[in-house]
Amino acid sequence: MLALVFEDALHLVDIDPPIPEPHEAVVRVHRAGICGTDLAISRGYADVRGVLGHEFVGEVVDAQMAPQWIGRRVVGEINVACGSCGRCRAGLGNHCSRREVVGVRGRDGAMAEEVVVPVSNLHEVPDVLDDDAAVFVEPLAAAFRIIEQLDIDASTRVGVWGDGRLGLLIAMAMATTGCGLTVVGRHSHKLDLVRHTGATLRRSDDVMRPDFDVAIDATGRSAGFADALRHVRPGGTVVVKSTLAEPLSLDATRLVVDEITVLGSRCGPFEPAIEALAAGTIDPRPLVEMVYPLRHGLEAFEHASRCGALKVLLDPRS
Amino acid sequence: MLALVFEDALHLVDIDPPIPEPHEAVVRVHRAGICGTDLAISRGYADVRGVLGHEFVGEVVDAQMAPQWIGRRVVGEINVACGSCGRCRAGLGNHCSRREVVGVRGRDGAMAEEVVVPVSNLHEVPDVLDDDAAVFVEPLAAAFRIIEQLDIDASTRVGVWGDGRLGLLIAMAMATTGCGLTVVGRHSHKLDLVRHTGATLRRSDDVMRPDFDVAIDATGRSAGFADALRHVRPGGTVVVKSTLAEPLSLDATRLVVDEITVLGSRCGPFEPAIEALAAGTIDPRPLVEMVYPLRHGLEAFEHASRCGALKVLLDPRS
Repeated sequence: MLALVFEDALHLVDIDPPIPEPHEAVVRVHRAGICGTDLAISRGYADVRGVLGHEFVGEVVDAQMAPQWIGRRVVGEINVACGSCGRCRAGLGNHCSRREVVGVRGRDGAMAEEVVVPVSNLHEVPDVLDDDAAVFVEPLAAAFRIIEQLDIDASTRVGVWGDGRLGLLIAMAMATTGCGLTVVGRHSHKLDLVRHTGATLRRSDDVMRPDFDVAIDATGRSAGFADALRHVRPGGTVVVKSTLAEPLSLDATRLVVDEITVLGSRCGPFEPAIEALAAGTIDPRPLVEMVYPLRHGLEAFEHASRCGALKVLLDPRS
Repeated sequence: MLALVFEDALHLVDIDPPIPEPHEAVVRVHRAGICGTDLAISRGYADVRGVLGHEFVGEVVDAQMAPQWIGRRVVGEINVACGSCGRCRAGLGNHCSRREVVGVRGRDGAMAEEVVVPVSNLHEVPDVLDDDAAVFVEPLAAAFRIIEQLDIDASTRVGVWGDGRLGLLIAMAMATTGCGLTVVGRHSHKLDLVRHTGATLRRSDDVMRPDFDVAIDATGRSAGFADALRHVRPGGTVVVKSTLAEPLSLDATRLVVDEITVLGSRCGPFEPAIEALAAGTIDPRPLVEMVYPLRHGLEAFEHASRCGALKVLLDPRS
């Protein structure tokens, strides 16, 4: 089958179809999304090797121990914990040190005709959701993770820094809380994609008061983090969503004197993401710039890595 | 009266005694402590000007609107909030942006024969506490702040990095929670000062597993922060207590992938500090290296700034 594989560089290659364990399912991929982590991996980040792709939607075509899943359209959680270590037993499977991560660590991903994931990682996609929306469940779940970590309600002033793929999804997720939302970016046409949420839209060079309860950095740049940090109120929280190669610089005096919290945030819960998409509360499809056939995957990566590109999807069936 | 004043440099000068507002008290200082912030200020940190000193114990000699305080031995909280801004009304007076801080910002401090503080900042010192212990209430309160911010109990694995003045006080405060405590430092003779707490004592080059729930950096060095960060478990918290001139470097990938929380922590509650000292649960007096007469204040600062020095106190009455 055709697959996008990173070894020394990104290659489009023909490989053997994956062979599932009995507790796993084979999913025929309908869509796979290219995200910032994929782009970083394609530049050598974290020494990842294998088939890329951790945002996907597809149809189950095989599931030895759970045949009832065959024929269902699914998305899949990407962390595969060992299930037996101390962290797993403490319910921290997402932080299992022996975990595999689909398309990121130790497991082939979904930029291929087929991907294998444990049945227990699957979530069925409601019929009302088309593939172009459902492929956003994984990154949107990561946005909902922030709501799981922090107490955010209508009284919370939330700022989102970054108008890229991740920043806009986070803004859409935050808007569901009814919080006082401001989105800070560099491109009016991208900020416009979340205008319907009622958020206040700001250019990143606008002068603002440092009174956000929560400032979320999704810029992928250390300068963006510094800007978010500058705008949080004393006692407030800066959430970091972007893995960055460069270290963040943190003003210890500001951190201590103003008792700021800096919080890392990674993968999140699929249920609220699926619900918000199914209810139409969130429609991420305007973020899709192009759907490429998988056989044009290298071109798709080139497109996705252009400055300012939003979502680029791969279709292994066309 | 005699006072240690920082202008362009630290000077011992004779100044007019302070004149209190009606709601303020005049405290005749028995002891003032020299802490890391004072040393930083004496090197030009944060452009502080005026009489230094924010750790003190003394006797009230004047209090126009609260004469019942006269003759009582007291310690004093150092933040003086405006009382009327949004943050003050929200109960965040410690983060009032117009606040004054005794000996640090806008208010003369306690390295003088007398210091003036609002009566509402005073706490009476129980007779059982001598001056050399009571002068530790303010820094010990800052240590107890961590217990106020985080949920720490017998099941929590806590690591304290730093065996200086602040690190040892934090270790003593943490030990009162019954948590699983490890103290990491570079000097056996200083670590020995907290051996009685039952803490595990480690040299900073010992190899340890990264499984602390809470890692507290009180080293005052960015390398210490990095070490604390390295040893916290996924989902754990790194507490930063030291204001540092140099920026901290933060590995964003570690922060995000392991969902670490970094928490700044400043001033804390006086009550638990006074209680622990009065009950004898904490005895910080072994940290005192020397008590200097205030008239030898410059020499005292020189002593306190020596590498590895613990607590140096000033006595304005001798």
